[in-house]
Amino acid sequence: MSLIVLGTVALDTVRTPFGFRRRMLGGSAAHFSMAARLFTKVNLVAIIGRDFPQEYINFLDKKGIILTSLIRAEGATFKWSGEYKRDLNAALTLSTELGVLSAFKPKISEDQKRIKHIFLANVDPDIQRHLLAHMRTPELVALDSMNYWIKHKRQSLLRLLKEVDIYVANDQEARDLSGEANLIKAAQYLYSRGPEMVLIKKGEHGVLLYCSKFIFSIPAYPTDKVVDPTGAGDTFAGGFMGYLAKVKKINQVNLKKAVAYGTVAASFNVEAFGLQRTSRLKLKDLERRLSRFRKCILF
Amino acid sequence: MSLIVLGTVALDTVRTPFGFRRRMLGGSAAHFSMAARLFTKVNLVAIIGRDFPQEYINFLDKKGIILTSLIRAEGATFKWSGEYKRDLNAALTLSTELGVLSAFKPKISEDQKRIKHIFLANVDPDIQRHLLAHMRTPELVALDSMNYWIKHKRQSLLRLLKEVDIYVANDQEARDLSGEANLIKAAQYLYSRGPEMVLIKKGEHGVLLYCSKFIFSIPAYPTDKVVDPTGAGDTFAGGFMGYLAKVKKINQVNLKKAVAYGTVAASFNVEAFGLQRTSRLKLKDLERRLSRFRKCILF
Repeated sequence: MSLIVLGTVALDTVRTPFGFRRRMLGGSAAHFSMAARLFTKVNLVAIIGRDFPQEYINFLDKKGIILTSLIRAEGATFKWSGEYKRDLNAALTLSTELGVLSAFKPKISEDQKRIKHIFLANVDPDIQRHLLAHMRTPELVALDSMNYWIKHKRQSLLRLLKEVDIYVANDQEARDLSGEANLIKAAQYLYSRGPEMVLIKKGEHGVLLYCSKFIFSIPAYPTDKVVDPTGAGDTFAGGFMGYLAKVKKINQVNLKKAVAYGTVAASFNVEAFGLQRTSRLKLKDLERRLSRFRKCILF
Repeated sequence: MSLIVLGTVALDTVRTPFGFRRRMLGGSAAHFSMAARLFTKVNLVAIIGRDFPQEYINFLDKKGIILTSLIRAEGATFKWSGEYKRDLNAALTLSTELGVLSAFKPKISEDQKRIKHIFLANVDPDIQRHLLAHMRTPELVALDSMNYWIKHKRQSLLRLLKEVDIYVANDQEARDLSGEANLIKAAQYLYSRGPEMVLIKKGEHGVLLYCSKFIFSIPAYPTDKVVDPTGAGDTFAGGFMGYLAKVKKINQVNLKKAVAYGTVAASFNVEAFGLQRTSRLKLKDLERRLSRFRKCILF
């Protein structure tokens, strides 16, 4: 019952119609961890620079995230700056500074190499492969990526698809990598490239899980409280993978429930800037919203 | 157990990646009727021109649609021509010829005036109001519209909202009329303008039903078979209103089931050009897909 996540820990500067925040704690691994920690021990693998505030490390530590493989290196921390206009579904990236991320070589302990549940959040596919190669007994490996790698390291990413169980993508990425406009066809294509399952995140429109045995599709949790959607996809993945790490058994019932947990976790994430809401989240908040959510989609 | 629908009967010319069809039988009232007939007697109120093929009238008649208020007038039938590119979710309108539609004054019989379930499909809101004024004992009135009327007859449409039970809109229309980007906020605004319920159709992303007591949100039926989506929204409305006309009792359970029936009806509509698939549809096809659909969203 533990989980390892490879990804980014970043300093995010975000403007939305509801405010402006400078250099918040962000990044895929940070958002993922904040949801996954509700279910299991989370081992975070990432790199930060000299400018990374100690208070953010203390904050992650206090949340119970295992930080032994959070490396600090010479140079600047990865920074993302973005803006959301009236339509909060689309982020406009203003700037990206890779900093120490460009020379990231993950290092993990012998104990961590024996962790069975692995989430490869969005970084260079060669770094993802590098970590995966060190894992001794992987049981469930999920892979996320982004448009940049689909464009610039397509072959590397396609090769990696054969080595993972679940490929997680947003709808645009799924369409870009598959060349299919219809999402079911896109999922079928991606499935044919290797993974056991394809999980397509559609933002405000929910999630689609595709595998050979079944298709599962649920909407997002209906909410009018969207303050900052940054990290919603990673929060979803954290809830999804965290639940599976907890229950261990990978079957249809648990997979569907994991998608539902991820969905409600993401609905909390968007309610406030950065990790503000998810860092205060308790499992019982998730449970309560899950049962409300169930009523919203049952007929 | 009968239903009256006011809308268009049109000649549609459509190009999609799967083919090209000229002057098919189409229009909102035709698509609506083809789904609603599976549940109840459908009275169609529309206007056609001299050029409308008799075979199409015979076809509707054979499907059991009551055509006593399908008026034939001097002039040309309403024609729509559109194209769908690779992304079948967005129609590109190539031309619209109103023809006889521009001078349409619906006329209905004394019997029809006593029908309790009324669907005002997309035509000029003044024509919709004209028909509604003649209904003696309305019990459930649903209203659809389109961007053209939101732009050009906004006040007329907003006034009409106060007189109906359900306002049906697609996501873009809901955003345009409300000025809200978030769909829950859009639904709240539209609800505040009068109707008991707001039903937002999101195409490939499903449907949202909003009212004071509950929110219901389901995805579209997952399908990779999309040949021609023209009329999917009207087919949805036909399944939704047809089911409610059949069960009569308007409660939460029946409303949700009606949305689900509409959803699966629409999933058949997109599988072939025009009315080709829905005209062959039987209630048991809907039932079968409904139970498959339920499995796709249950957790």
